[in-house]
Amino acid sequence: MNTIETVRVGLLGFGTVGQSVARILCAGHVSRVQLTHIFNRRVASKHVDWVPPTVKWTDEIDDVLRSDVDVVVELVGGLHPAYEWVRAALTSGKSVVTANKQLIAHYGAELGELARANGQQLRFEASVAGGIPVLRALQEGLAGDRLVEVRGILNGTCAYILSRMQSAELPFAEALAEAQAAGYAEADPTEDVDGADAAAKLAIIAAVGLRRPIRVSDIATQSIRPIDFVDFQYAKEIDSTIRQIARAAIEEDGRVFAVVGPALVPIHSSFGQITGSQNLVMVRGVFGGETWFSGSGAGGSPTAVAVVSDLLSIGRHAPRDAGLLPVASVAEVSSDFVAPHYVRFMVADRPGILAEVCAGFARHGINIEAVVQLPRYRKDRLPFVATLEACAASVLGRALADIARLEFHVEPPLALPILA
Amino acid sequence: MNTIETVRVGLLGFGTVGQSVARILCAGHVSRVQLTHIFNRRVASKHVDWVPPTVKWTDEIDDVLRSDVDVVVELVGGLHPAYEWVRAALTSGKSVVTANKQLIAHYGAELGELARANGQQLRFEASVAGGIPVLRALQEGLAGDRLVEVRGILNGTCAYILSRMQSAELPFAEALAEAQAAGYAEADPTEDVDGADAAAKLAIIAAVGLRRPIRVSDIATQSIRPIDFVDFQYAKEIDSTIRQIARAAIEEDGRVFAVVGPALVPIHSSFGQITGSQNLVMVRGVFGGETWFSGSGAGGSPTAVAVVSDLLSIGRHAPRDAGLLPVASVAEVSSDFVAPHYVRFMVADRPGILAEVCAGFARHGINIEAVVQLPRYRKDRLPFVATLEACAASVLGRALADIARLEFHVEPPLALPILA
Repeated sequence: MNTIETVRVGLLGFGTVGQSVARILCAGHVSRVQLTHIFNRRVASKHVDWVPPTVKWTDEIDDVLRSDVDVVVELVGGLHPAYEWVRAALTSGKSVVTANKQLIAHYGAELGELARANGQQLRFEASVAGGIPVLRALQEGLAGDRLVEVRGILNGTCAYILSRMQSAELPFAEALAEAQAAGYAEADPTEDVDGADAAAKLAIIAAVGLRRPIRVSDIATQSIRPIDFVDFQYAKEIDSTIRQIARAAIEEDGRVFAVVGPALVPIHSSFGQITGSQNLVMVRGVFGGETWFSGSGAGGSPTAVAVVSDLLSIGRHAPRDAGLLPVASVAEVSSDFVAPHYVRFMVADRPGILAEVCAGFARHGINIEAVVQLPRYRKDRLPFVATLEACAASVLGRALADIARLEFHVEPPLALPILA
Repeated sequence: MNTIETVRVGLLGFGTVGQSVARILCAGHVSRVQLTHIFNRRVASKHVDWVPPTVKWTDEIDDVLRSDVDVVVELVGGLHPAYEWVRAALTSGKSVVTANKQLIAHYGAELGELARANGQQLRFEASVAGGIPVLRALQEGLAGDRLVEVRGILNGTCAYILSRMQSAELPFAEALAEAQAAGYAEADPTEDVDGADAAAKLAIIAAVGLRRPIRVSDIATQSIRPIDFVDFQYAKEIDSTIRQIARAAIEEDGRVFAVVGPALVPIHSSFGQITGSQNLVMVRGVFGGETWFSGSGAGGSPTAVAVVSDLLSIGRHAPRDAGLLPVASVAEVSSDFVAPHYVRFMVADRPGILAEVCAGFARHGINIEAVVQLPRYRKDRLPFVATLEACAASVLGRALADIARLEFHVEPPLALPILA
C-alpha cells in the first residue's frame, strides 16, 4: 500500500456546518485528515471543549491563509470576502473545499482554473444538494454517458412551504410564516422563494453534468409567491401537486435550456412526495436513461459529510483531477421549454369569459386539453383552470399577454408547466 | 491544464454489454479512451462494421493480455477463466474494469491487492446496480460519513416476477414463465430467485460502503419461490407489497448483519414502486442520514455507462486510488435482524387452530399484533396471516419450528420481515 500523508485542514467559519465538519473530523473515524485551524470572526464566543487543544483558534484570516494547512475549508458563505480568501488560498498553494453555491456558480470556472494553475484542487460537492453526492456522480460515475437533462428539487424552503400549502390548505403567506417559525425560511425569503438559490445550484449542476457552463443570471426564475392554495385544489383534480423544480436540458443541436420555478408534478411521483429538507435530482443520459438521487439537501451534518468526503478525495487524488468544471465558453440559455401547461385564471364572473379565453388560446395556435371549474368559490373571485397541450413557454406567454388585457381578471393568470 | 495520455482498451467479451461499451467508445464523445482490441471466443461471427478498422479482433486471449493495452475490460462473466485472465492482466501491468459481480464478490479483495502491488487499478462499478453509480457514491461521495445500513432492490428478475404477481394476481410459476418469455429471467432462474445474485451484489456494497468485507456464502438467502399470490392480497391489507430486498447493517459493537430475501415493504414507498429492471439502493449514515439512488440496474447501455465511467476514472486518477475494497479481515455475518414479521399459514381448517398458533408464539415470547383472515378461500386450503411485533428472526424461527409440527398445515408457514 502507498502511504498517504495526513491532510492538514483550516476551517473558515464555525457556524452550523463548520461545527458539524469539526465534529466529524474529531470523531476519530476519519483517518489522514487533521483539523489544525479554526477561523471565525467572533472566535472568543465560539470555543468548544471537544476540539483538541492542538487546534489553533483565530479571528485573523491570515493566520489560516499564511499557515501550513494543505486545505482551506470555506464555510463563510456569500460572494465577498469568500472570493478573495479562496483566491488567496489557491494562490498560496492550498486546495479549497467549499459549500458556497453562489461563489461556485459565479466564479467556479475561474477559481477552478486558478486551482489547476497552482497544482491544487477546488472541490464543492456541498454546494449542491447537501449530503447527496450528486456532483461526483455526474462528474465521475456517469462520466461515460452523455447527459442531456436534469431536473431537481434543490430548495428545501420552497418544498416546505408548498407541501404545507398542500397538506394544510394554507395561503402562501401563512405557510411562509410557518416556515420562518420552524427555521426553514429566513426573515428575507427572497433568494429561496423567488428562485435565485435553486438557480445557482442548477448552474453548478449544468456545468458539471451537462458540461455546459451557464451564467446564473441567464437562468429564468419564476417565484412561488403567486401560488394560491386553490392551485393545489385544482392540481389535485389531475393527480398533481406543485413543487419548485429546477430544470436544464441540452438539445441535439447544442442549445441549452434552463429554468427554475413552480411546476405541476404527479402527486404520487418522487417529486410530488418531497416535503421538507429532502432534495431530489433526476438526470437523464443518452445511454443510461434516468438516474435518481435523493437525501438530505440541507442541515449541518449532511452538508458536513459532503465537505469531509471532498477532503478525503483531496488526500486520495492527484491534482490533475482538479478540473471539475469544464473550460468551455459560457452557453446561451433559453427558458423556452415546450410542455403541457396549467393556467389558472381568477376572474369576476360574467357570461362569455370562457369563450373569450378559448378564443385567445386559439389565436395563438394553442390547444386546450380541458377546462376545470370547481364549485363553491365566490363569483367575484372565481378561479378556473385550463390545461393546455404541449406548447412553447414563449407562445403561451404571448397568448396570456393577449388574454390578460381582457377586463374580467382580478389577478393575473398563473401559468405553470405540467411535468410528467 | 495537464495533458493526459490516451488510455488504450482491450475488450474481453462482445455480448450485449461489450457491444454497448464499444458503441459508446466509438460514438466520438469520449475523449482519451481508445478501443484497440476485441476478444471473443467465436470472433468471426461477431464482426461489426461500426468499429474502426484499427481495432484488432481476436479469439486468442493472449493477443489482448500480451498487447500494449492499458486497461482490460472483462465482460466474459463467471468465475473462471475470468479470474485467471484478470490476474494475468493485472500482473502484466494492465488495469482492469469488470462488470463481474461474482468475481468481485469472491475475489475482489485479493485482486484489489494484486492491482495495488502492480501499481494498477481494479474498478467494478458495473458489477452492482448497472448504470447507477452507487459504489463510487459510497466509496467517495459519502466517504466522510460512517455508513451503518444499506437496503436495496438489486435483482431485476425478482422485481419483475413479484410486481407481476402483484398486478396480475399470478402464481409464482406463471409470473416466472412470463419473465422468461420477456427475457427478464433465464431458463434456470435459480441464481436470481433464490438470492445468490443479490447476495453477491450485497457483499460488494457491504465491503465498499460499510467497509466490512463479508463472504457471499455467509449471507443467508431466502427464495421468493414460496411466495403465493394470496400473500399479495394479505400484504395489501396492510398497505404493503412484497419485494426481494438485500439488507446489511453494522451495529455499534461492530457486528455485521446481512440477508437477502422477500420482505413486505409499503406499497407506495420507493421500494414498493420498483417494478422491473430499475434498481434502488438506500444507505444510512450516522451523520448524513438516508441517501437514495435509483436507475437502470441492468441492460447493455446503462451497464456500459458504468464501464466507460470507470475507464475515464483510470485515465484521471493516480494508481494510489486503487484501494476500492478495504483490506480488513472478513467479518462474521449474522442474519438475525430484529423486525416486525408477517407470517402466512396455509391450513386445512378445523376449530382451535388459531388458539394453537397463538399459544405457540406466546411460548416464545412473541407478541401478535393482528390476525387477518380474508373471506372466499377454500376450507381445505385456507390461508390466514399473523403480523408480529418486532422480534429476532432466530426467535421467530424457533417458534415456527414448534408451530409447524402441528398437523393442520398444508404448506410450511411463510415468514417475511415487514420493513418500514
